[in-house]
Amino acid sequence: MAHFACIELGGTKINLAAGSGPDDMSAVVRLPTLDPASTLAAMVEQLRHLAGEGGFDAIGVASFGPIALTPGTSAYGHFRQTPKPGWSGADLLGPIRDAFPQTPIALDTDVNGAALGEARWGGAVGLDSFAYVTVGTGIGVGLVCNGRPVHGLLHPEAGHIRVRRQPDDSYAGHCPFHGDCLEGLACGPAIQARTGKAGETLAADDPVWSLTGRYLAELFHSLILIASPQRILVGGGIGLNPAVLTAARDAAHSGLGGYIEALEDRSTFDEFIQPAHLGDRAGVMGALALAQGASHEHRAP
Amino acid sequence: MAHFACIELGGTKINLAAGSGPDDMSAVVRLPTLDPASTLAAMVEQLRHLAGEGGFDAIGVASFGPIALTPGTSAYGHFRQTPKPGWSGADLLGPIRDAFPQTPIALDTDVNGAALGEARWGGAVGLDSFAYVTVGTGIGVGLVCNGRPVHGLLHPEAGHIRVRRQPDDSYAGHCPFHGDCLEGLACGPAIQARTGKAGETLAADDPVWSLTGRYLAELFHSLILIASPQRILVGGGIGLNPAVLTAARDAAHSGLGGYIEALEDRSTFDEFIQPAHLGDRAGVMGALALAQGASHEHRAP
Repeated sequence: MAHFACIELGGTKINLAAGSGPDDMSAVVRLPTLDPASTLAAMVEQLRHLAGEGGFDAIGVASFGPIALTPGTSAYGHFRQTPKPGWSGADLLGPIRDAFPQTPIALDTDVNGAALGEARWGGAVGLDSFAYVTVGTGIGVGLVCNGRPVHGLLHPEAGHIRVRRQPDDSYAGHCPFHGDCLEGLACGPAIQARTGKAGETLAADDPVWSLTGRYLAELFHSLILIASPQRILVGGGIGLNPAVLTAARDAAHSGLGGYIEALEDRSTFDEFIQPAHLGDRAGVMGALALAQGASHEHRAP
Repeated sequence: MAHFACIELGGTKINLAAGSGPDDMSAVVRLPTLDPASTLAAMVEQLRHLAGEGGFDAIGVASFGPIALTPGTSAYGHFRQTPKPGWSGADLLGPIRDAFPQTPIALDTDVNGAALGEARWGGAVGLDSFAYVTVGTGIGVGLVCNGRPVHGLLHPEAGHIRVRRQPDDSYAGHCPFHGDCLEGLACGPAIQARTGKAGETLAADDPVWSLTGRYLAELFHSLILIASPQRILVGGGIGLNPAVLTAARDAAHSGLGGYIEALEDRSTFDEFIQPAHLGDRAGVMGALALAQGASHEHRAP
């Protein structure tokens, strides 16, 4: 039976697991994401435990970004400029490769990984073009086109698109790069800054949820018209808030103005934008999908 | 020697040509785009002339959209809802198939076709992720991801993204579906409506060029962050206007705020967004690339 390592590297914690498939996985080991050196050392130590004597058939890494994804370049597996202190330029893959030099390793963003997981076991089975959107502390978008995750120059960073400001919204936005890009206006810290409260403590009908949903609709509109996905899956604590999702669907459907015939029917549209299926497991399942892919490519080059 | 038919179907005219490759093509035959029945009948008649006795090895069709691109569906090759009178639902491929029942036919949008032509013979050779943007009477975007044009639910219709309004711009926009989407604010008819003059008669430093460029920058920003292209090629009479392109690059570079490290250097960025190479030939060359692809798939299924 194959034995895969699954690494989900998030901005605040790492989830590690190992197993042969979604129904045969170890318990998830959680580590805090601190500075790169100590974090990656702790991660490798845990991986050695999970590997056991037989090692891994492949390792899948689903990581926060931005991170260089073009194999064969010197930057491959290194973080790019990130507001996360200490992590700009850090080498994520090096320590894993050093510890498991013979093992195929596949790397992608956490959100591209989650999208692959949804394609294998979740809400995008059978689709070859779709988007996975998560809205929480930040806004991340995984995108699959023509059956493969989109990389290109870097990888999608669609949380940072510029959006049309809602009337009467004077909040300056909190993105350190763009101020009032989508992420700057519509994720967890923006909700906290607008209301002075953590999202969990707000009433279900607080107007900030609807405002956030209307901003999220701008992303849906642009995704539909640029990438033409067959489905948009939404995850994350804020993305799954019913008031956010309802407002986002309302505004996106109305904003399209009937232009995309296949999405004109409202119930079809509400199916088109649906909650992601894998929930909390999306990251680890994404890493598993990456590992399985790496193992497959390794065996059949 | 292979003999390919190339059909570029535009909103106002059809370009037809035949030959074995880019350096061996017939003169281009031009027909006006009138109602579907008479237009397609005239097109088929010209194709029969171009076919000669030997027929075609394959036919490539690069058409205005929206048009259904999923082979095997009943809508395949039919136009979707379009503001062009009489063309909503019209069957483009049927008459071609009836006339050449044994010949492989490949269909894509004019802009996806142009992108493929640029990949084969123009400004995107060697790239597997890039965008082709044309700005003229309308705004069209062809997108290649993972080496193939993007289709998905429909195909990119990125001229219709919602953009942030420029301060002090009160023009309502002219898009019949969205009013002030990008196309509604920044293409030929918008320039005419704002200035009361045709673009060709305006001074090179008319402020409308810079305004148009700043709107176009919103598209570049969203393309970069959603589709992560390795290059953006720009065509069309308005897109190639130097004042438009300069303003668009300025605003897009500044709007990214240094977030995409690989595009931070300004001269790299100006190379990243560059004029398309094939110019007026983009449509026919796109159709040729489609025909060659269809012929190849037909021989090696």
